[in-house]
Amino acid sequence: MAEQVMLPDPARPNFDGWTCPLPLRDHPAVVMGHGGGGQLSAELIEHLFVPAFANPLLEGMADSAVVTLGGARLAFSTDSFVVQPLFFPGGSIGDLAVNGTVNDLAMSGAQAAYLSCGFILEEGVELSVVGRIAADLGTAARRAGVIVATGDTKVVDSGHGDGVYVNTAGIGLVPDGVDIRPQRAVPGDVVIVSGMIGVHGIAIMSVREGVSFGTEVVSDCAPLNGLVAAMLDVTLDLHVLRDPTRGGVATSLNEIAKAAGVGIELTESLLPIPETVANACAFLGLDPLYVANEGKLLAVVAPEDADAVLAALQAHPLGVDAAVIGECVPDHPGMVVTRTTFGATRVVDTPIGEQLPRIC
Amino acid sequence: MAEQVMLPDPARPNFDGWTCPLPLRDHPAVVMGHGGGGQLSAELIEHLFVPAFANPLLEGMADSAVVTLGGARLAFSTDSFVVQPLFFPGGSIGDLAVNGTVNDLAMSGAQAAYLSCGFILEEGVELSVVGRIAADLGTAARRAGVIVATGDTKVVDSGHGDGVYVNTAGIGLVPDGVDIRPQRAVPGDVVIVSGMIGVHGIAIMSVREGVSFGTEVVSDCAPLNGLVAAMLDVTLDLHVLRDPTRGGVATSLNEIAKAAGVGIELTESLLPIPETVANACAFLGLDPLYVANEGKLLAVVAPEDADAVLAALQAHPLGVDAAVIGECVPDHPGMVVTRTTFGATRVVDTPIGEQLPRIC
Repeated sequence: MAEQVMLPDPARPNFDGWTCPLPLRDHPAVVMGHGGGGQLSAELIEHLFVPAFANPLLEGMADSAVVTLGGARLAFSTDSFVVQPLFFPGGSIGDLAVNGTVNDLAMSGAQAAYLSCGFILEEGVELSVVGRIAADLGTAARRAGVIVATGDTKVVDSGHGDGVYVNTAGIGLVPDGVDIRPQRAVPGDVVIVSGMIGVHGIAIMSVREGVSFGTEVVSDCAPLNGLVAAMLDVTLDLHVLRDPTRGGVATSLNEIAKAAGVGIELTESLLPIPETVANACAFLGLDPLYVANEGKLLAVVAPEDADAVLAALQAHPLGVDAAVIGECVPDHPGMVVTRTTFGATRVVDTPIGEQLPRIC
Repeated sequence: MAEQVMLPDPARPNFDGWTCPLPLRDHPAVVMGHGGGGQLSAELIEHLFVPAFANPLLEGMADSAVVTLGGARLAFSTDSFVVQPLFFPGGSIGDLAVNGTVNDLAMSGAQAAYLSCGFILEEGVELSVVGRIAADLGTAARRAGVIVATGDTKVVDSGHGDGVYVNTAGIGLVPDGVDIRPQRAVPGDVVIVSGMIGVHGIAIMSVREGVSFGTEVVSDCAPLNGLVAAMLDVTLDLHVLRDPTRGGVATSLNEIAKAAGVGIELTESLLPIPETVANACAFLGLDPLYVANEGKLLAVVAPEDADAVLAALQAHPLGVDAAVIGECVPDHPGMVVTRTTFGATRVVDTPIGEQLPRIC
């Protein structure tokens, strides 16, 4: 299907005329959607980054890479954070920067141990803003039980940033016997979500657009390592974990379906959606399945483990609204469908970009 | 000397009126110098980040943190790269992003094993530019023997970036018996530099300002892990290693002098400075001791190891111009001085910011 990307000769001769033929689009330039976690992001990774970096770890398409070093089996992950506004109901870019990477590591079954933290500050941003973000980051790290071990600060000229950008990378130990990755979903597996969906995206949208939906919607930004530990106490044989951030539940489930070559069938009536989110989505013409979450996880588990895993989630303060929302099926491999309340099924496709840019 | 930073209550009540009293300056906002690696950067770390993150690893002031995980002793480091222009004689932001982190790990004696890579792309940047940078990054990683294991891409609106920013974090194994850190310098130790200084900064300045200095100055950007391995073959007891990037040799030596509580005495006539750099510095009114390097290291070693370490450096293609440039002394602890060719001594202070912003 895809044309081969013409990578320049490693000897670095002449880059003139070099183009990057993304197969599905005809953009010569980066558009906002390339950062949205949907199809455009996936194309950029598949056709530009993976060939350039040429290694199988990146092809795993997991939230974190699992590597071995000095006999230790480590999860390793990174995320940059460019959310606007920097402070929002329920958190800040500092909270996101910790929880985002802690959660990516947790999706490999790892307890985050150490974080790195790189700030890109825009000239002119108030030091008190930087200080509040650093304080939030420190507080979030202590909450998640992770140590900020190393950092870096760069400053860019006014007009070349947006106050504060933060990158975190993290490492954590993957317990023996744990092998959690998207490829492990098999027909019959049960799909569980740890709580109400769509909250982070609507919280950001409401404050950014100044729209109120009756009650204030507060971001669900939270560390998920405790939930994962609770599930691993039930069984080490969790098949897939994913935190449905950019692109929401729909995008994460599509990635799992494609990686594992299974179909996924959701039951619409089982989706836990807060009334405020449902109202906001109706008002704005959005689908809650595509709205970002920052404190929820999807778990794909063997049917015989489903009840115990669900109970373990519901017993945790962050998982009280956990619910079974669907199952993996042998039909339509690589595709996610939802059974509507009217009994019809509709395809839940991967979005091109993201409904709301710079959500994290 | 320093006032205590008033950190907000971790319960996140009211941030209004919170200020960050940096002790020496009265800037309420971030200035370019906060990213320059000099005194302003050090104040930001000491008075804002370290109290917020509250852990002893950050206080070590090393280029990378050394942590233990699953029985493995790991070096862990991060750097963000915001250099302008993105491509310059001798390299690109892609080369810098690999070598910068590989070198920070090497300064703890670690061979870089895995890198993470986070891109912040500005809407509108050409995909071919992103592709060239990714290709450079991949090539540099293969040259340094490190694997890009995990990544992330964000896109920011046009006018809120500068084409491409890159963050890398890296992990590598620290060999048993190796304990390299700034605190280990002692009077009598010999200070060695691995080659000609000031080249990267002048290369960037020449292309950015369109100034020519006769011969083109090409960045020295290179991975230093091979040089470090060659030195460790001579002795595991290297005391301090530092790659003198932002702020140059002067800033790195000041950091070592302060961390170890020793004086450092340089001999001006021993400094290996290329003629083009010397000419450029004379023309621009710069001091080569403060100009950034991206492929040089400073080694502080016991006097009995100095000859063998120097020989090992000189036998490596990246170290042919290595030279002894000074020594650690019991006098003037925390201070660096240089003996001029006229026999006088002058103090080599830590700069406030960086002579040339966005050098890496």
